[in-house]
Amino acid sequence: MKLATYKDGTRDGQLVVVSRDLSTAHYATGIASRLQQALDDWGFIAPQLQDLYETLNQGKPRHAFAFDPALCMAPLPRAYQRLTGSSYASHAALLGEEGTRLAVHQAASDAMLGAHDPVLCANDNLGVDFSAEIAAITGDVPMGASADEALESIRLVMLSNAISLRNVTPGVQSQAAAAFSPVAVTLDELGDAWDNGCLHLTVQVTWNTRKVGLCDAGADMTYHLGQILAYASKTRGLRAGTLVSSGTVSNAGFEIDGQTQWPKGYSCIAEKRAMETLLDGAATTDFMKFGDNVQMEAKGKDGQSVFGAIDQALVPAGA
Amino acid sequence: MKLATYKDGTRDGQLVVVSRDLSTAHYATGIASRLQQALDDWGFIAPQLQDLYETLNQGKPRHAFAFDPALCMAPLPRAYQRLTGSSYASHAALLGEEGTRLAVHQAASDAMLGAHDPVLCANDNLGVDFSAEIAAITGDVPMGASADEALESIRLVMLSNAISLRNVTPGVQSQAAAAFSPVAVTLDELGDAWDNGCLHLTVQVTWNTRKVGLCDAGADMTYHLGQILAYASKTRGLRAGTLVSSGTVSNAGFEIDGQTQWPKGYSCIAEKRAMETLLDGAATTDFMKFGDNVQMEAKGKDGQSVFGAIDQALVPAGA
Repeated sequence: MKLATYKDGTRDGQLVVVSRDLSTAHYATGIASRLQQALDDWGFIAPQLQDLYETLNQGKPRHAFAFDPALCMAPLPRAYQRLTGSSYASHAALLGEEGTRLAVHQAASDAMLGAHDPVLCANDNLGVDFSAEIAAITGDVPMGASADEALESIRLVMLSNAISLRNVTPGVQSQAAAAFSPVAVTLDELGDAWDNGCLHLTVQVTWNTRKVGLCDAGADMTYHLGQILAYASKTRGLRAGTLVSSGTVSNAGFEIDGQTQWPKGYSCIAEKRAMETLLDGAATTDFMKFGDNVQMEAKGKDGQSVFGAIDQALVPAGA
Repeated sequence: MKLATYKDGTRDGQLVVVSRDLSTAHYATGIASRLQQALDDWGFIAPQLQDLYETLNQGKPRHAFAFDPALCMAPLPRAYQRLTGSSYASHAALLGEEGTRLAVHQAASDAMLGAHDPVLCANDNLGVDFSAEIAAITGDVPMGASADEALESIRLVMLSNAISLRNVTPGVQSQAAAAFSPVAVTLDELGDAWDNGCLHLTVQVTWNTRKVGLCDAGADMTYHLGQILAYASKTRGLRAGTLVSSGTVSNAGFEIDGQTQWPKGYSCIAEKRAMETLLDGAATTDFMKFGDNVQMEAKGKDGQSVFGAIDQALVPAGA
């Protein structure tokens, strides 16, 4: 099934069930008003949401309405935990980061952005960069879970745009915001595109109407989401509603005539700049500026958008 | 006023108002069932809780009951964000950490422990260490808030015991758990013990019935809680219900006859070991072992416990 959270003026919004083709939606009122409620008691609540989803796909419910992604908060607007990993070694290698070891960090989760929410920033000379990532929401993960056991805890999958400030020292201040796709989907929706913690779909990134990224999220995933969760749960259990993100989706480059080629574009500007520096000795592509727009989407084999599109503008804070 | 959260089998527990002397309590049912609700709408809900608190202190409410700290969850059992700072430069210096610069990290906040909850650990050779800290819960903190503005957002103050695994590489895996005092108190309860983001009270730490720490939490606080919040809110707003912790409470040592003296004991074992290494060339005090107990408490000028006592045993996970 596909779930979203509609804006209603509250901090948690209203849970809605969305049809498979993203055309219609229905409030989950009477089942659960907030997604966290469903995550806290998934075994009991998920089947009821699934029933509503099936009725919705058959076009039957009386109170269905046209689904508008612009009215969405993040599916989980605030979460009790967010873990970010470094799933793609090719990204880390290009950026000269920690290499091939899995790195996992705690990230802020008090204010997740909706798919069409603007990215607010004090000024645009901080190196504002987007990052297309695969994200999941878990149930409870016991302490000491294996990667396979941790995978079993994944309830929902989304796309995410993690905004970082590349000119700010990496840490609490450099992680400016994270937005999520309009809908979060259960694993059965993904069919064989979901394989062992990897999402085998192309993530399309469009920056100011130019298609800049068409990376395959599954091909070069060095560490899958279950491995990130197993790493984090080594010394403590993780509670239901934990968000986990893959880090920037990336594909490995290849060599032609002794030059590294970059097959499928980039999912963050820092990669483009690193590649320029490698090839030409200097980065020429600038980071995002106020008024810039970034879109992210993944389509299934049928050509339909699986999660809906992230579509965000960078705007001055307080404007 | 003083607030606590009673265990009721749910993940968030039930909000209770506790009398100033910690002898009686009253469910806040009808006002707010969970602390996060009160934080989300503090201006509206806090005065109603305050009214109940005053009635309780006068011994009047019909449904008051004896307050039992053993039945407490953390005042905020799960939070949307936890920030930890390095408020005490003397602690950082002793441990050879990042020196005098303020360091702020995101920490896990999905499963905060109650004051009497056991600390679960897979094995006790990981360097299990306690850490007595000052913690606060905030309302919304706007992006770019000054340290003074951030202080204005502090709603409640607590003691915290942050359990870390000193033999594990610092990061996600080394932060095993955090427990909080039975009650969280508003700033007016602290009187002049609260001064500009510093808590001028002695934090008493007892390890296996031996009093090992009597550090003054205010005297040597290099960075107050408002400074930690201002650091974290530089590039994004922080939402209501953010937990912020000071890092290990510590007092600066002084020199007598060319030897560094340690005036008021220690609030974490790592400090004791660092001091032993400095003085004798090797650490002789071992970290916590299964069955060990640690208690933390702060008393006001009247000799009464302000927050109630943290009282935790280290037990094997799964036992």
